[in-house]
Order: sequence, then structure tokens, then C-alpha cells
Amino acid sequence: MTNPLFAAWGRRAALAAAAVLAGLAPAQAQRAKPATTAPADNATGAADRADSLALRKIFDEGLLRGESYENLRYLTGTIGARLSGSPQAQQAVEWGKATMEKAGFDRVYLQEVMVPHWVRGAKERGEIVGNKGKEIKVAVCALGGSVGTGGKLKAGVVEVKSFEQLRQLPEAAVKGKFVFFNRPFEDNLIEPGVAYGRAGDQRRAGPMEAAKRGAVGALVRSLTSARDDNPHTGSTNYNPAGPKIPAAALSTNAADQLSQLLRANADLQFELEMACATLPDEKSYNVVGEIKGSKFPLEIITVGGHLDSWDLAQGAHDDGTGVVQSMEALRLLRAAGFRPERTVRAVLFMNEENGNRGGLEYARLAAQNKENHVAAIESDGGGFTPRGFNVEAEPAVMAKLAKWGPLLSPYHAAGLAVGHGGTDIEPLKAAVNPKALIGYDCDSQRYFDIHHTAADTFDKVNRRELELGGASMASLIYLLSKYGL
Amino acid sequence: MTNPLFAAWGRRAALAAAAVLAGLAPAQAQRAKPATTAPADNATGAADRADSLALRKIFDEGLLRGESYENLRYLTGTIGARLSGSPQAQQAVEWGKATMEKAGFDRVYLQEVMVPHWVRGAKERGEIVGNKGKEIKVAVCALGGSVGTGGKLKAGVVEVKSFEQLRQLPEAAVKGKFVFFNRPFEDNLIEPGVAYGRAGDQRRAGPMEAAKRGAVGALVRSLTSARDDNPHTGSTNYNPAGPKIPAAALSTNAADQLSQLLRANADLQFELEMACATLPDEKSYNVVGEIKGSKFPLEIITVGGHLDSWDLAQGAHDDGTGVVQSMEALRLLRAAGFRPERTVRAVLFMNEENGNRGGLEYARLAAQNKENHVAAIESDGGGFTPRGFNVEAEPAVMAKLAKWGPLLSPYHAAGLAVGHGGTDIEPLKAAVNPKALIGYDCDSQRYFDIHHTAADTFDKVNRRELELGGASMASLIYLLSKYGL
Repeated sequence: MTNPLFAAWGRRAALAAAAVLAGLAPAQAQRAKPATTAPADNATGAADRADSLALRKIFDEGLLRGESYENLRYLTGTIGARLSGSPQAQQAVEWGKATMEKAGFDRVYLQEVMVPHWVRGAKERGEIVGNKGKEIKVAVCALGGSVGTGGKLKAGVVEVKSFEQLRQLPEAAVKGKFVFFNRPFEDNLIEPGVAYGRAGDQRRAGPMEAAKRGAVGALVRSLTSARDDNPHTGSTNYNPAGPKIPAAALSTNAADQLSQLLRANADLQFELEMACATLPDEKSYNVVGEIKGSKFPLEIITVGGHLDSWDLAQGAHDDGTGVVQSMEALRLLRAAGFRPERTVRAVLFMNEENGNRGGLEYARLAAQNKENHVAAIESDGGGFTPRGFNVEAEPAVMAKLAKWGPLLSPYHAAGLAVGHGGTDIEPLKAAVNPKALIGYDCDSQRYFDIHHTAADTFDKVNRRELELGGASMASLIYLLSKYGL
Repeated sequence: MTNPLFAAWGRRAALAAAAVLAGLAPAQAQRAKPATTAPADNATGAADRADSLALRKIFDEGLLRGESYENLRYLTGTIGARLSGSPQAQQAVEWGKATMEKAGFDRVYLQEVMVPHWVRGAKERGEIVGNKGKEIKVAVCALGGSVGTGGKLKAGVVEVKSFEQLRQLPEAAVKGKFVFFNRPFEDNLIEPGVAYGRAGDQRRAGPMEAAKRGAVGALVRSLTSARDDNPHTGSTNYNPAGPKIPAAALSTNAADQLSQLLRANADLQFELEMACATLPDEKSYNVVGEIKGSKFPLEIITVGGHLDSWDLAQGAHDDGTGVVQSMEALRLLRAAGFRPERTVRAVLFMNEENGNRGGLEYARLAAQNKENHVAAIESDGGGFTPRGFNVEAEPAVMAKLAKWGPLLSPYHAAGLAVGHGGTDIEPLKAAVNPKALIGYDCDSQRYFDIHHTAADTFDKVNRRELELGGASMASLIYLLSKYGL
């Protein structure tokens, strides 16, 4: 891209910013105005103009004087990985509390919660063992919650693409072996999250299914479209009453290699060594920061991300970005000069990754205290460029949210879809039934390349993308706190 | 992001894919269907259903068996930087021709064009020299087209934020000095391209303006929001009749440092050494691949990117991605089983970065041959996740394009805005006046972090994002070739 026509691009992009709407009629596109003017076709012109200016202030503050990026640098770089029960998780709790106190929120407090404490251990090794004893080392990692191997575990391997295929195998084909779940992502799906959902049963329940059939271990293809050497961890669930067998993820390259070698030699063996273990539960905390509503202090809007992260990297996109965006959303409201009419809470949830105890406790306390929750927002899909929000709500509430689209569209944050809010806020539904559970939605094409791997590091986060997300969330909160639902 | 609710996310995202529309009414969002069904509200139901299925085939082919990513790996990794006139530019021409011949297009040919041949030379060095002769080395690079310094050039520095400020300075404040253009990106603008457009005069014309006032050199703040040590090159333009002074970019960190030191010591000096030079023009080529239209062979649709790239890195996002996406777009049509009704041309333009001779020659030949051009598409804004297209066209043509929005929206490629098509295709307007000049539009938040720097490398390109872009372009071409404009 060169120079002389960029003045033209300048003019063009100002229009495009307000007009990147699917199927937008060109007449509308040409009429689209910068964010400081209110959309002409809205009935409540004056209020809209004030709201449009308010959002512009929030984005100016976020992009010019944002604090989320430096906060994330500290959380990911200085504290680092912070799986529930770890010393780093405790450091993250203290840092979150101190950061929100420093930001001057009205009230900052902890909610105690007992969390699982799983540790990976020092040793983690996987090898394909050929006919003549030739060993090929491959990239593996224990799945979260897995039992260890108790020394070396060596056995044959049977590859399956589905539970159905596993169930149809004769018992002898499975008993005493590793079951190797190797159904790849469906790469032609446009949303990687859908591919994750459709392949995810292998990780979540594969080891349990394999154990039922007498397998001694489970190997699971990493949940990603990427072809590389990063194994992807993540929780697996055992049947509490059934046998627990060691469960490991293979990188996609390792899975492809194992599959290829199996075709040539069905009798090859796999040797796995993992020292992971589950220790007694530990005491931990959700961290809550609150700005009291000026008019309706008993009506609550929650915005949150999860403070815990997998142990292989720094938990940058999963979910350091959600944590710093949630704190930033409250800070932006104040820094831009707004006192919310309803009470707004930033919640840094503990233990989303392997138990959701923080989310459950937050909901339990909300019910116990008979709190009135208007809406809850969660950011847990990465810190990439905004697309909008996914919402669980009644149609009338959706219609109300949809009216705010024109205010958010200049920021590419006007996408509104029926969808899942988030794991942390989900328990609020049964507990206090907020009018809307809202998931922040952003570009997701890169997310599963690094999700739950050693590559989920600070350098993968772009400052502007992160800040646009925090300001989008703050903008929605501004509207929710002003108008309710 | 954790596991148990991802089955729900799977269902949700399938809806979201079709419904991420700004301000979309929730009733619509809930009705949104996967891409294999035609939108219900379209008058031409049967045709739409066929077209919807056609686009799905194109995306399946692109995402499951795409070739653009491996092509890009070769172009950026094996050939590398390929500034006009360089041996690598010639290698890229030969590679482009061979790649399209191998793809089996109906006709592949070269268009000869003479191009500028600027070389950076071996030596490039910048130092801030303090009062006591203390030297601080800073990150600099010559701007494209700059003259060299002919040994060391040492002079005082005067900092300005605008040409207006420069013009108001007394002659003595400028004469014999470096003028330091240090107006940063306006970070609160949502589109980085707008910020680039608004700051870009400093690079394009700053050295010329400084020379007019008697300066001996120009230092220009790099055109980016990023704060780092990468200087950003790019063309500068001299007044052919006026004096030519050496012109260098400073990294943003270097610019901030120089500005800070100038505040403490207005008399500091800067020492610049650059061995760059302009050599005689070289013979080079556009590379053209063509699939003949089955019904209207004389109606032409062009899709292109530019083959040349700046010399500091690999020209990955600028514009290797546009090159491989353009070739891929034609390949996808055939691989998905479609023979276009109108003639489709992939054009790999030479010399976009510092002269646009390829674009001008393509247009000149089109006029000379009295060709009928329906539309031209250019991809030169990076290979990131699609948003849609920016179009220069009459309102009636825009309205026709807008009707295809529902077909493109499941792929997040339905954004339609009035905007600039691209530098390479721009000369077609005066030459043969296509009904539409169309610029492929994608997420741009990261683009100017790496643009024209040593960081514009293959690893910055995400396979899925690249492939979604190529399939989006192929989809638009499918529709254009079937229906015309």
C-alpha cells in the first residue's frame, strides 16, 4: 500500500467506519456520518446525540489514555500463568484488588471460594515406539484434571474419530490400550468456535469414554485448526464413580504423525509419562470492584472475565484480556466523566478453567442477598477486534438492545446475535435471572491457534484491538446503566 | 474459555455467523440460517439459493484445500523483499507466471513496463549528538526515493508538527538544519487508515517542503500507532525542479526520544549517513492470468494485488497477501466447478510502492485495446479477517452490489462502503471507466504496526484470515461474472 491516494482513503474510511454494515444500502452508506453526530433515523434524536457523544468520549479515553494494555503486561508478564490454587493465582487476586482500589472504585472486595488445585508436575513426555523399539518423541501435555501415569505407561494405540466408532469396536481392540481421539477441526466452518464446540467432546469426555471400555490411557488431538507443535491443554471430566485413566493432548503435528505411523504399523506402542496430580482444594477469591449507581443503586450490571488461566503460558487472550477490559470498562466510565445510574461491578472470576467455582459462588451470593441483576457481560473469547455482542434474553429485551446498534456501529461493535453469554456469568441465570446475559464478541480466527497453549502470551495481544474491546464494553454498560432493560 | 458450555457456543456461533449485522433486529437474528440456505426476504429465491450454495462451495474449497498460504510462504520466504528493479522482483514475476500457468488458467502473459530502481545501499545510520559530543544511536531508515547523504551529514534539528508550523518559522530557524516532522497518529480514530491518511503528508511531502525552506535533511516520524523501534519506510516525493535533500524515517521510539532531548537542548545535532541512490530505470512486468468468459468474453473483471514490496522485510501483508489472494480467487472459481460467464483476470501489478508504473501501463493497454471493463478489485490493505468491500461506483451500481450483502454476510464479508478501490486499479478509471472500482476491506487494526517495516513477515499472516479473504474476493467475482453490473 502506497502513499498518494491515502488522503482519499482517509475520507473513505471515515465513512466506512460508520457504514460497514452487511447489505447496507449504498444511500445509507453515503449518508453515514462520523461518530459525533447522531443517526438521523432515530426517534429519540436528542438523547441519541448525547449518547453518541458519550460513546465518543469513552472511546477517546480508551484509545488515548487506556490502561488495560499496561495492566495486561503486568498480569501476564510479571505474574504469568495462574491456574486455580497456584501461588500466582493468589498474586493475581491481590493485584486485581490493588489495581481496582487504585482506580478509586467505590468499593473493592473479595469473595472467598474453595477451588480445585491440579498441578502438572515436572515430568511430561510422550513417545511413539515403533516395531524395532525405535522411539519418536512427540509434543504432548496432560489434560487439566488428568491423573498421572505413575511412572511410564506403555501400551498399544487404537485410533478413533468419534465415540460412536469407539463403541462399535470389539472390547479386545480397546482393552489395555490408549484410545487416540483424532477427529480434526472442520476447517470449512467460518467460526472457529463452532469447530471447537463440535470437536470438543473428544477432550471433555473422550478419556471417560475410553476408560469405560477398558483403555489404560487417552490421547486427544489438540483442539485447533493450526498445524504445529503446540499441544493444547484444557479440562477433561472423569466419571466420579468410574476408573480414571491418564489423558494427554497431542499437538496436531504429533497427531498427524501418529495417525500416519499407525496406518503403516497398527501394532506400534505409545509411551506416556506424566506426573500431574490433584491436590486438596485451596482457598481463593473472586475480586469485585463496584461503582454505586446514582439513581438505582440496587440494580446491578456485572462485567467480568476470569482471573485464573492455564499453566502452560501467560493466559493473555484466555483470559487476561477479559480481566483488564472489565476493570477498564469501569475506569473509562469515570474517566470520561460519567457516574452510572445503576450499580456497575467488575468481577474477576476465579476458576473458570477447571471448575467454575468462582462463577457459581458469585451467583450463590447474588441469590442469597436477593440482588436485582439487570445484565451481566463477560469477555472470554480473546482480546481481538470487536464485532459486537452475543446475547441470551427475551425477544423484547433483544429489541431494546438492537436499538443501540447505530450508536455502536461506528466502532464495529454493533453485531448483535442470539448466543451464549459466558461460563462465569451463566450461573446467574438460575440464581437471579438477569434480563440479559451478554458475551463480548470479537474476531475469533486466531483465537484457537493459541488457546490453552504455551503460545498464549502478551505479544499476541494488539493494543488497539484490546482497547477497542474495553471501550465497546464500557459503551454498552453506559447505555445499560442509563436506560436499564 | 473453558469446556462444558461450548456445545452451546457451537449452536450460537452458527447463528452469529449469519447475524453479525449492525443493529440487526433480534427477530432477524433469530431467523438467521447457516449459509446453505438462501435468505427468505429476497425476491429472486431460486437464483439466490444457487448462489448461496455456490459461495459455500467456494469457501469450502478455500478453507479446506486453499493454496494461497503456501504460495505466500514461497513468495515471502524464498523470494523475499522485491522492490521494483531488484533481482527478487524479477524472480517474483517468473514465479507468478509459473504459478498461474501451473494453475491452468486459459492464458498467462506479461506486460512489459519500465520501473524506477531505487536501492537502499549498505550504510544507514542515525545518531543524536548532544552538547558534549555524546552520541545516541537511533533507529532510522531512508525513505523510498531519498537521495543519499554522500558521507556523513551533521546538522541541528528543528521539530515541527505541521507544514503550517514550518512555514511560520523564520528562515534562519530552518536553513542548514534537519526538519523533524513529528506529528503522531491520532490514536482515537477508529480506522488506522484514516490516521495514516492524516499523518501521511509528512512522509510524502515533508522533505520537499523542508527543502523549499533551505533545510539540509528531513527526519519523519514513522507512520504508525505502535511505539517501538521499527522505522517505517515508504515513498517520498521531491519537487523535480527543486533541491533534493536526504529523507529518513525515525522509529516512533526514536522520534519520542529526539523530541524529548530537543526540549532539554534545542542545540543538539543529528548525524545521518545513508548510501541510498536512484539507478536507471529497469525493465519489469505485470503478470496477468486470465480465464475466458463463457458467455461474455469481452467483458472483463480484474482482480489484483501488487507484486513489488519494500526492501526491509518480506512484503507479507503489503502486498504478498493481495497477490496470492488474487491468484487464489481465480483458482477457487475453477476448483469449485464454475466457469465464469465474463472474462476474469488476476493481475500481479509491478511497482505500486514507488511509481505505480504497472497500474498505469495496465490501464494504458486496456484503453489502447478498447477493452470493456466491468469491475476491478484490489486487495492491498493486508490479509486480515474480511469486513467487506469499499467501492467507487454510481449509486445504481452500488444498489446492485448491496443486494448481494445477504449472500456474503455469513462470511463477515458483507460490509459495503463508499471508498477507494486501490492504487493499482485507479488508473483504469480515466482509461476505460469500469462500472466499479472495488477495494477488498479487512480488519485493519494491526496493519500499520508492521506496514513498510522489517516486521512485515510471513509469520504475521494467519492462514484462515488469508483464506477467508481470498474466498470473499472469489465470491464477489462469481457474482460479478454471473450478473455483470
